[in-house]
Amino acid sequence: MDKQRKVATHPERGNYDRETVNKILDEGIVCHVAFNNDAGLFNIPINYVRIEDSLYIHSSKSTRIFTQLSSGSDVCITVTIVDGIVLAKSAASSSMNFRSAMLFGSFTIVDDLKEKELVFEKMMEKLVPGRWNDSGKPNQKEMESVGVLQMKIVDFSVKSRSGPPGEEKRNQDLPYWTGVIPLSVTRGEPESSPGNGNIKIPHYLKKTA
Amino acid sequence: MDKQRKVATHPERGNYDRETVNKILDEGIVCHVAFNNDAGLFNIPINYVRIEDSLYIHSSKSTRIFTQLSSGSDVCITVTIVDGIVLAKSAASSSMNFRSAMLFGSFTIVDDLKEKELVFEKMMEKLVPGRWNDSGKPNQKEMESVGVLQMKIVDFSVKSRSGPPGEEKRNQDLPYWTGVIPLSVTRGEPESSPGNGNIKIPHYLKKTA
Repeated sequence: MDKQRKVATHPERGNYDRETVNKILDEGIVCHVAFNNDAGLFNIPINYVRIEDSLYIHSSKSTRIFTQLSSGSDVCITVTIVDGIVLAKSAASSSMNFRSAMLFGSFTIVDDLKEKELVFEKMMEKLVPGRWNDSGKPNQKEMESVGVLQMKIVDFSVKSRSGPPGEEKRNQDLPYWTGVIPLSVTRGEPESSPGNGNIKIPHYLKKTA
Repeated sequence: MDKQRKVATHPERGNYDRETVNKILDEGIVCHVAFNNDAGLFNIPINYVRIEDSLYIHSSKSTRIFTQLSSGSDVCITVTIVDGIVLAKSAASSSMNFRSAMLFGSFTIVDDLKEKELVFEKMMEKLVPGRWNDSGKPNQKEMESVGVLQMKIVDFSVKSRSGPPGEEKRNQDLPYWTGVIPLSVTRGEPESSPGNGNIKIPHYLKKTA
């Protein structure tokens, strides 16, 4: 790995272990894909899924992101999970608990229809386990019009912070409360569309709600 | 604004209104800052605050991000809020509800100590209203060692999706449930550090929990 891409400050927060990066990627919902094109620098949020050692995104073939990334542009992709607000007695020592994975590389196009369908399935199942087999499958035309891009996860770094606040010794007796406010993404009650008629909320949504 | 930076696909999801971008920036917790340097392309998650028409970040002056961005590098900064999983009857029409703001520009260094302190205060108050006046303030040394960077919000675009699923006519009679699973970032019970002794959880944390 390029040495300069390692975590430069707070090296204790750096980690290059594949299991750690996989866990972050499997928990995150949206990645941010940075790339350059003729118009400048872009940073686009998009859904993704990890399958084995690859990250996949999908998009209509007519989009800017698909056109640029399918040409093999360099990308830097980051997934960040915010776990908490860390309140030290002093403002300067306050911080965030988080986990983030930064991936470096470029995409290649997936043309094989079976592999594309597997990506659609895994992408759905990542968000809503049980949904794929309880929804209409893409037809041939949809399978062909949607582009799938694959990036091998080879060059990456992880940065994270967890646990209670650190405190400078001189601030340890300040009369302020100190601790962590946990943050998490939670799912609300499913909002049923008018078109459901007699169809009830499926069991796999009740479980994840 | 550069025409090519406008939302290329789904133009109905594009918006260039300042109030809309401000609302997203004020609700988001972390932005992703993309930039190029000699080692390649990076995409770094960092806290931020908006004050009037500027976005501010802060960082130790010894970090890679501060060194590169204080030199005036082009950046693309994105803040994304995920609002829900949109389940259409067909997998291909399923989607996400989200709001994202993409900002284009470059940073300048804030040297004025009063302005720096205001940024520290607003950054804390954005995450935990009421905390700034109930915490130890940065001393002179901390004020000087932490760098603050400002970017004027001039060139930006917003992309969002909201509401129930769209459905292709041919899929409207499929026998699957359709609707939205709302997603939101929620705060858990504050976790008190051992160093608190008799100090109780402050009222402003009870309100936001």
